[in-house]
Amino acid sequence: MEAASANGEGARELTSDRQPIGRCRCLGPAPPRVGLAPPPGSRRCPRGRAGQPRAGEPGSYKAAGPAPLLLLLLLLLLLLLPAAMLRLLLLLPLLGAAGALPSPLRRRRSASLPVGPYLTRYLSQQIDHFGFDENRTFQQRYLVADQNWKKDNGPILFYTGNEGDITWFCNNTGFMWDVAEELNAMLVFAEHRYYGESLPFGNESFSDSKHLNYLTSEQALADFAVLVEYLKMTIAGARHSPVIAIGGSYGGMLAAWFRMKYPHVVVGALAASAPIWQFGDLVPCGTFFSIVTNDFKKSGAGCSESIRNSWDAINHLSSTDAGLQWLSNTFHLCSPLKNLQDAAVLKNWLSETWVNLAMVNYPYKADFLQPLPAWPIQEVCKFLKDPSLSEKLLLQNVFQAVNLYYNYTGEAPCLDVSQTATKSLGEMGWYYQACTEMVMPLCTDGVHDMFEPQKWDFDALSEECYRMWGVRPRLSWILSMYGGKNISSHSNIIFSNGGLDPWSAGGVTQNITNSLVAVVIPDGAHHLDLRSRNPLDPKSVQQARALEIGLMKQWIEKARHSH
Amino acid sequence: MEAASANGEGARELTSDRQPIGRCRCLGPAPPRVGLAPPPGSRRCPRGRAGQPRAGEPGSYKAAGPAPLLLLLLLLLLLLLPAAMLRLLLLLPLLGAAGALPSPLRRRRSASLPVGPYLTRYLSQQIDHFGFDENRTFQQRYLVADQNWKKDNGPILFYTGNEGDITWFCNNTGFMWDVAEELNAMLVFAEHRYYGESLPFGNESFSDSKHLNYLTSEQALADFAVLVEYLKMTIAGARHSPVIAIGGSYGGMLAAWFRMKYPHVVVGALAASAPIWQFGDLVPCGTFFSIVTNDFKKSGAGCSESIRNSWDAINHLSSTDAGLQWLSNTFHLCSPLKNLQDAAVLKNWLSETWVNLAMVNYPYKADFLQPLPAWPIQEVCKFLKDPSLSEKLLLQNVFQAVNLYYNYTGEAPCLDVSQTATKSLGEMGWYYQACTEMVMPLCTDGVHDMFEPQKWDFDALSEECYRMWGVRPRLSWILSMYGGKNISSHSNIIFSNGGLDPWSAGGVTQNITNSLVAVVIPDGAHHLDLRSRNPLDPKSVQQARALEIGLMKQWIEKARHSH
Repeated sequence: MEAASANGEGARELTSDRQPIGRCRCLGPAPPRVGLAPPPGSRRCPRGRAGQPRAGEPGSYKAAGPAPLLLLLLLLLLLLLPAAMLRLLLLLPLLGAAGALPSPLRRRRSASLPVGPYLTRYLSQQIDHFGFDENRTFQQRYLVADQNWKKDNGPILFYTGNEGDITWFCNNTGFMWDVAEELNAMLVFAEHRYYGESLPFGNESFSDSKHLNYLTSEQALADFAVLVEYLKMTIAGARHSPVIAIGGSYGGMLAAWFRMKYPHVVVGALAASAPIWQFGDLVPCGTFFSIVTNDFKKSGAGCSESIRNSWDAINHLSSTDAGLQWLSNTFHLCSPLKNLQDAAVLKNWLSETWVNLAMVNYPYKADFLQPLPAWPIQEVCKFLKDPSLSEKLLLQNVFQAVNLYYNYTGEAPCLDVSQTATKSLGEMGWYYQACTEMVMPLCTDGVHDMFEPQKWDFDALSEECYRMWGVRPRLSWILSMYGGKNISSHSNIIFSNGGLDPWSAGGVTQNITNSLVAVVIPDGAHHLDLRSRNPLDPKSVQQARALEIGLMKQWIEKARHSH
Repeated sequence: MEAASANGEGARELTSDRQPIGRCRCLGPAPPRVGLAPPPGSRRCPRGRAGQPRAGEPGSYKAAGPAPLLLLLLLLLLLLLPAAMLRLLLLLPLLGAAGALPSPLRRRRSASLPVGPYLTRYLSQQIDHFGFDENRTFQQRYLVADQNWKKDNGPILFYTGNEGDITWFCNNTGFMWDVAEELNAMLVFAEHRYYGESLPFGNESFSDSKHLNYLTSEQALADFAVLVEYLKMTIAGARHSPVIAIGGSYGGMLAAWFRMKYPHVVVGALAASAPIWQFGDLVPCGTFFSIVTNDFKKSGAGCSESIRNSWDAINHLSSTDAGLQWLSNTFHLCSPLKNLQDAAVLKNWLSETWVNLAMVNYPYKADFLQPLPAWPIQEVCKFLKDPSLSEKLLLQNVFQAVNLYYNYTGEAPCLDVSQTATKSLGEMGWYYQACTEMVMPLCTDGVHDMFEPQKWDFDALSEECYRMWGVRPRLSWILSMYGGKNISSHSNIIFSNGGLDPWSAGGVTQNITNSLVAVVIPDGAHHLDLRSRNPLDPKSVQQARALEIGLMKQWIEKARHSH
């Protein structure tokens, strides 16, 4: 886990006198801000360690990185899975195969991140909010930026951290930084337990189902509630601050659920690209992949057809050793394919690549999951114009396409098809969550989409999860807990979705009530609205943000009059 | 636990043909109904076993009675507590010292219970809804009465069971039976986990903190949510039935919280005598006992003063062996007092008796916690007119007073001061809950109340709980979870409170919004409105019930138009 150790990027210490909030050790130079002028003396704290957790209290676990052996074992487990392709549909991570944490190859910093200075702090949280036998605590990390905050009960924008290192979300949620000044808002980014540094049992957190037992959305929401109440109690002038939950992807689901379950804690929520209905039979399981397919279809003639044809080509070639060898060479794979199972891994990896491209199909050069050009699917599709090519020519083009995704900077010596499993602790956590609460049915038919047909198979998921983690998923629990489509009695939630984003398949795309508002951004990929302003932003996302800001102002105004 | 074995009251089997719902074995003859004519062929199932739990499924615990040895051990633990008086304030059960289950002495049936026939069923519930490591299930008991139900999505009144055997609540919530016909409603009474037959680990449920770990309000609410969804899915014609949560006391808290946390499951809640604000510093800790005192003050000149003076008299007499002997004889105690600690137990028992009388100060003869005459405090106060009597004469009168409570029928050969601890599993469960989530600060000062002064002492509670159960209470968790006084964003909850009821101190007694409505019943004791209609009902409770029924009809009507 990178953030637990100094990253060697020339650390320099910046002492803050704001002791009530914490002490910031910024790493790296002050970057320019995009969209808004940087505040004087601002420093970005990119992914670095800032501040210190409290000294180990009795009964308190100190966050730390995972044991390398443990990671290796889990990696092996994942690699040994009998049906690698199965994993794609059963366990597709919300934030793509690249995982929530960037790989070492991609740990470069983008100088364009519009993030200001923040303080890193830690709060002791109960490991188990819902039981009293486990009474130990752990240190939850959170980031605070109060330079724009109006101390007299100005609002707090609270990012409900999702499946990854919170500094990464902090750096990739420019929208909050962009609006902080306009709203006089304090920004808080709360790390989700079991991700980043917020590990309930330190190195042991992922060791078995006993230690993983407290990785649930309910526990995470309880952490958030306790944290908000702590902030309001301890920060002078924040007692009556209206708090707005903001999150994207799984974080958006958490933001919405936070408002639903703890409306006394947050006055509203902006749930960006939150597929809260990708559960049970609330939406068809195939829509997700048909949206991916449409993105490719629209981005270049022959593009989705080329991809659809690629599967047969791979299947044919992988039936011989020579073919496997050819595939390994053609795709510049770091480890050569040895058998059909490896070929399935290759196909899985390709599928996830197409999905990821759909998620990050942004209108400008960006570095979210990968450094990519503007409208990356259009770029990819330039290699995939002719679906009728012979299989080798077709697959050579497919390589060019994925190479654009994995190697846009030209630094990768080879491509690593196992990377969906090797990436980070964040990915392990999400696999566990997908094996317990976050059961999101997905399927393909090869007709309405460009993927190999695969039915949704809950039993297979259950078996796989039991093998991997010793737990079984509960299909309907999320529906019982969070209400499925029957959520009209809640209020003050914005559900924003991008028309290009496959996760919009499970999103709320029509208004439910006057205060459960759907915002659709036709030209938007995965939570484009949460990214910082960009001159190349399409009109639709500009309008979406304006609407979101307007509603947030209404919530803040109303809260101001209620106490 | 009585209900787990046949009670020998002349069981006779009544076969029902309504297999989808279950099979009723009613015990005893058909009783007359008060207020409403009994439906043809109706049979009451008083506290008896009706139906059978499903045969033990793999990984499923079968409910069963507690091991006698375990009960004995816990009884000993409770008796050995160093500060018996402390227990009163720290762990006062909501339903009085008599506990949720009647003692063997009081297990007679009241012929006036207006309860119709019901079916007893069981549902497999996850032992842990909030974690996946414990994947076993247990059988939750629930009772169903559908004779008045309109099958075309008629409403369901759902009793959110509290700290005791659900058949006891079923028999003591006549209001639901009274309104079932008018509302065309199905009645469901759901048993709270760890009470009655719904024991997650059978005999082992109370064996240690590991087994008790799943006894929380959150788990109970999750059981309720899953049960309601199961009923709506499996009962023909119930798919769109609006469900209204109803409960009294802790059950009322659960009803309110159920609506707050699962508004997609219940369209509204009637929370009767639910002290949802008796937490943290939301209300003064002394109000509870000052209400008890006022009840006595209003019920007879000299009454509360006599009780206030009794403590010094007991303290003085218990300083000598002769005095202890005299006290033992005078109070007809089953076990003589041996030391000051026993005297503290006596005072604790007396205090709880006065509290219980305040809770059941009903306007007619009733048998809730005990068989009692109408307005029992007035009867008690007839013995307590002269506070200036000498200490022995005063205490002889106090004995007459408590004897009326414990021995109204004249059947008790002696009075048992340890009964707060001996009564039932229900009481054990509540002690655990009071030691974890349900931390309700109470205090006395001897000035505004008639009790011996005692401060609220959280640390002492914490130590006591740790000794008893190996757990520590969390003072603020309930506030974080359920919002404290900041609940205005919820809707459709009626909070009813009786002016005579000490628990109204922690209740919602003023409207919060148009749909969070407070109903105050000045002449009402503990959830009088949930009792069946009675010719002696004061006007205020009649009006309260009319208002409650009117609001419930509105919720039902609105729900009918929403699908």
